[in-house]
Amino acid sequence: MTVKVITVGEDILGANEEKAKANKSRLDGYGILTINIMSSPGAGKTSLIMSTIKSLKEKARMAVIEGDVASSMDADKINEMGIPVVQINTAGGCHLDANMVESALNGLPLEKADLLFIENVGNLICPNAFLLGEDKRVMISSMPEGDDKPYKYPAMFADSDVVLLNKIDLQPHLDFNVDGFKKTVTGLNPDVILFPVSCKTGEGMEAWLDWLESAVKGKKKR
Amino acid sequence: MTVKVITVGEDILGANEEKAKANKSRLDGYGILTINIMSSPGAGKTSLIMSTIKSLKEKARMAVIEGDVASSMDADKINEMGIPVVQINTAGGCHLDANMVESALNGLPLEKADLLFIENVGNLICPNAFLLGEDKRVMISSMPEGDDKPYKYPAMFADSDVVLLNKIDLQPHLDFNVDGFKKTVTGLNPDVILFPVSCKTGEGMEAWLDWLESAVKGKKKR
Repeated sequence: MTVKVITVGEDILGANEEKAKANKSRLDGYGILTINIMSSPGAGKTSLIMSTIKSLKEKARMAVIEGDVASSMDADKINEMGIPVVQINTAGGCHLDANMVESALNGLPLEKADLLFIENVGNLICPNAFLLGEDKRVMISSMPEGDDKPYKYPAMFADSDVVLLNKIDLQPHLDFNVDGFKKTVTGLNPDVILFPVSCKTGEGMEAWLDWLESAVKGKKKR
Repeated sequence: MTVKVITVGEDILGANEEKAKANKSRLDGYGILTINIMSSPGAGKTSLIMSTIKSLKEKARMAVIEGDVASSMDADKINEMGIPVVQINTAGGCHLDANMVESALNGLPLEKADLLFIENVGNLICPNAFLLGEDKRVMISSMPEGDDKPYKYPAMFADSDVVLLNKIDLQPHLDFNVDGFKKTVTGLNPDVILFPVSCKTGEGMEAWLDWLESAVKGKKKR
């Protein structure tokens, strides 16, 4: 067995953290709750954002930053919903960083927003190491990926405030141990809030929406 | 819209390519067909390898290199099947490189193998940039990830010899346009071989196994 550690240089992460702090204080100035959404490719980040927009449209003014290696498919969908959106194409980069987010913020009407979603690049490994200026980190783990993901990608589960277990509508067709999954996730992250949801059927979404609405209000009050 | 290009230094990729060539010529010396298997987390890399081992056990001598950020769960499963296996833990690294594979090769009985699977880290972005010494690149795209993945992660689809569309048993429960997916993939990669399969039910596996057996024989003959 061979183990090789690849470490991102501390200078890179340090510089990113400084920029992330600047983004956060800029967003704080507007009282915007900022959510960094991370997951594997195809776990449902865009579906979650679109479903949340539909439900909260009358209750909060939203904006979106879309991160993708290529294409503007997701931003186009959000744009069609009448929500301000900026697409970041990383052209091969496997995560967003605070510099990219700073540029994107310049393209958004921040004075008219209460809630900002930053959809990170689909990747369970690297996004976790880069702060963007977010208040909360929300990760999505989808049932078809399997219940062993927390063992294999522990850092992202450990560092997220909320884990959404998505695509629970597929449970009858999968071998997925929900209790085992919950136990592993809370073992890595005792403070995590876990919501089993289906963005497709709407099952479980109310608990997520309640949490989010309350977090938006809490941010405004500060 | 802001676009930022993050490029891995040419020196790093150049050094990796040299090492990959050395790995390849070492494996060629033994007449071993080497397959680099890439996919998102949870798309079915280990399931494919295990299912293939079961079917080809009497026809080819196999060995496996398992790449994961953390844990040795997958290597343990392969080991239980009586197949030589080495686990690489990247400790945060989001792809395998040729150096890691070289170390792993030192731990395998190459003189007793016809077919080597290298299971890359679950990631649709970075593994693609790093040659390991493989003969063929096989990627798995699983149906629940959605039919838009080739648009969003085009490089891996473009650079793979074979694309396995896995978890087709879930098709009745998903909105997945198979013809659209095939069209996009062949648009990116006209020479690609595409096999729709279910590692769970075995559907479609025969075509993949036939292709693989024939490739093993072809390599031995050279």
